[in-house]
Amino acid sequence: MGYRTYLELAAPLLQGKQLITSTMTRELDRAGQAIDLALQGKTVALVSSGDPGIYAMAAVVFELARSRGLDPGPGGLPVRVIPGVPAVAAAAALLGAPLSHDFACVSLSDRLTPWELIEKRLALAAEADFVIALYNPRSKGRPWQLARACQVIANHRDPATPVGIVRRAQRPGQQVELAELATADQTEVDMQTIVIVGNSQSKVYQGRMITPRGYINKYGERKNSAAG
Amino acid sequence: MGYRTYLELAAPLLQGKQLITSTMTRELDRAGQAIDLALQGKTVALVSSGDPGIYAMAAVVFELARSRGLDPGPGGLPVRVIPGVPAVAAAAALLGAPLSHDFACVSLSDRLTPWELIEKRLALAAEADFVIALYNPRSKGRPWQLARACQVIANHRDPATPVGIVRRAQRPGQQVELAELATADQTEVDMQTIVIVGNSQSKVYQGRMITPRGYINKYGERKNSAAG
Repeated sequence: MGYRTYLELAAPLLQGKQLITSTMTRELDRAGQAIDLALQGKTVALVSSGDPGIYAMAAVVFELARSRGLDPGPGGLPVRVIPGVPAVAAAAALLGAPLSHDFACVSLSDRLTPWELIEKRLALAAEADFVIALYNPRSKGRPWQLARACQVIANHRDPATPVGIVRRAQRPGQQVELAELATADQTEVDMQTIVIVGNSQSKVYQGRMITPRGYINKYGERKNSAAG
Repeated sequence: MGYRTYLELAAPLLQGKQLITSTMTRELDRAGQAIDLALQGKTVALVSSGDPGIYAMAAVVFELARSRGLDPGPGGLPVRVIPGVPAVAAAAALLGAPLSHDFACVSLSDRLTPWELIEKRLALAAEADFVIALYNPRSKGRPWQLARACQVIANHRDPATPVGIVRRAQRPGQQVELAELATADQTEVDMQTIVIVGNSQSKVYQGRMITPRGYINKYGERKNSAAG
């Protein structure tokens, strides 16, 4: 079961399986149907892209199981979460190594979260000098959130801070772009895009976005030469 | 190339390859040796556990390439980062779905980062109500940081906040434990442990740690029943 696009990506693994596709915004319906089929004795795989535990379906299944009073034992609803490569890690690998130090992930979707809380999180994450990965940066119905998020972060960070923008990471149609905080909102982003805003130490070197771990600063040229 | 333990985990993929093992704390030496071999024309895989871009070797390679003035073109140092399943996602999957909403990753190692900055990040992440994943929570030389981190977070969060502790996630010797913020520092943790502190909405239901995405709250029983 899953959103059609995700099942198409997994097609080589799905031969001979019963497939149930659904649309993107019916998460509760999909989870409910998966639970019903599992309770009938079927082995059901609910497919997310990326990691199923990060802004994805795993929590929806557990929330629904809880609201129905189901337990994870035999005869109840045994659930196993299979971890995957999160979109943020897939995107970071294409940019270079922007996530090598402390980072925060924030979704800009205010469908289930009040915008005030999102903005508070962005401001505090910026003040803490976290690398900030933005999920769901823009949709047709939410055109303004990315510009506002960049403004909030810019209160604590240089306008020239590098920003990596990755669309459809590691999939057909992949696009990788580097920008700066001051102008990142003018790039083409959508719901399949991850935007990674560097911290105060992040830099771009020959097309790669890097957040140093600090070895060179700490050990300098001596260790560096020894390593060579 | 890699730390011995990681190469042993990857043994089935390594038959017929030249293996170069190293100890955990010689990151610069390892990266330098990998670069030297690559410049000699060898194809070198530098193996990290988890994702190589998250607190791992990718940034060290780029930092060193930058300090040597190497470029990524032909004849220079072409580097490709292969994303993986980060330790935090591997751990979260075993706990349930604790990372389903905005979260921050913070390393408690003050080997390369001043403790004052780590503590500032913890305080702001707690104030922002991020789920907080702690990497490198304790080593023999750093016994007190986890207790202090929990104290800092507890200034903004209920002492009964669920905390998930996963040691050696998805590997031999795996251990999964649930605790509360007030007592989490008394659990057995080490450098192969990820500690995940819930946000104000996180809960434990029948042994699973869940951070709700909010569907049930938003759509309630009507949608819930429709989903069934």
